[in-house]
Amino acid sequence: MTAVSSDAPTDLTGLAGRATSTRADTRETHQRLIDAVQAWVATHGAPPERLADIAAMADVSTATAYRHFASHDDAIQAFVLQLPIRAVERFTESGGTTDDPVESFARWNRAWVDACVEHGELAVHLRSPIGFLQRRDEHDPVIEYACAQIEPLLEQLDGDTTMMLFMWNVTSDPREVLDLQRLGWSPDAIADFVTRAVLATPPATGAPTA
Amino acid sequence: MTAVSSDAPTDLTGLAGRATSTRADTRETHQRLIDAVQAWVATHGAPPERLADIAAMADVSTATAYRHFASHDDAIQAFVLQLPIRAVERFTESGGTTDDPVESFARWNRAWVDACVEHGELAVHLRSPIGFLQRRDEHDPVIEYACAQIEPLLEQLDGDTTMMLFMWNVTSDPREVLDLQRLGWSPDAIADFVTRAVLATPPATGAPTA
Repeated sequence: MTAVSSDAPTDLTGLAGRATSTRADTRETHQRLIDAVQAWVATHGAPPERLADIAAMADVSTATAYRHFASHDDAIQAFVLQLPIRAVERFTESGGTTDDPVESFARWNRAWVDACVEHGELAVHLRSPIGFLQRRDEHDPVIEYACAQIEPLLEQLDGDTTMMLFMWNVTSDPREVLDLQRLGWSPDAIADFVTRAVLATPPATGAPTA
Repeated sequence: MTAVSSDAPTDLTGLAGRATSTRADTRETHQRLIDAVQAWVATHGAPPERLADIAAMADVSTATAYRHFASHDDAIQAFVLQLPIRAVERFTESGGTTDDPVESFARWNRAWVDACVEHGELAVHLRSPIGFLQRRDEHDPVIEYACAQIEPLLEQLDGDTTMMLFMWNVTSDPREVLDLQRLGWSPDAIADFVTRAVLATPPATGAPTA
């Protein structure tokens, strides 16, 4: 169960774009391009459609941007990853997994809700039209990263892990978390609702066994 | 409980755009513009951003398009409405409400899943970044129309209607329905899962009472 925190750095290297240099100015440019995705979404309410747009927003040449990201989709992915990365950080700060599987899962949901409150307002504009389980099967890197955190927690609980994963995804979507927050719910109340909704996932009778 | 079918025509008049004429050629143009939204999404994988684009796709002048819709958002809304309208049609065909509230809700979910299978593949590209409950509070016409169908069904069930509505929305989203269908689930199995997930909605302890 230590996988949750120790996997993170390994996974991220491959996910955060092309840059492998550790020179400070290169890392700074990399971060500036990721921040430019955020600025673009905040300005336009929609994801950027060309890497050149992101480069211009970051005040970086398009050629330089291509040394960091293969495409605008790559840069968007690096931005979207900040939400689960932040959730993992907060989960680790809160003590991570415990001997009690339900408590561990509840802690994760609290960390996730906090990350949504911090980063979610822009993430809602970047939702994929492709389903969560399909993207997991197709090895979408962001989904794989998130599942690497959640699945070990779900496997400790009674029930069908895939259906609990489905239920976790739909109830903890940043859009829904922010919807409940707007109604005046506390992060604790939202996280508690997600935890109990997943624990109450009905069995998938009549469905083919995956 | 007859509201489900009898409300539909009343609501739709105000929602389907500006056209009030009943002349056949006007109705035909209206439908051609709605179909053009669908064609645009199918071609571009994203919603149209100008009414002129929709007009061009429909082979209609922009001026004519503005006689039918105030904006591209209006035309998109008319297209998105086709999914709940189709669900209401199928629900009515299946016999509508019964004396058994759970059976009535299960029938609605089956009608909804069928409508998603028919229309959902394009609807997933048109998801709003704003939460479902917020859009209901802001009287978004499509959400109000859907809620007018579902809330009377939920009110017959034990539990917190708002939270059951929240749970219904997240589990029955066309994207999720199509995700389960791709895994080989039958429409019956998907609808049954939605019904049971909503019936298992946990109470919203710790949240402010709405």
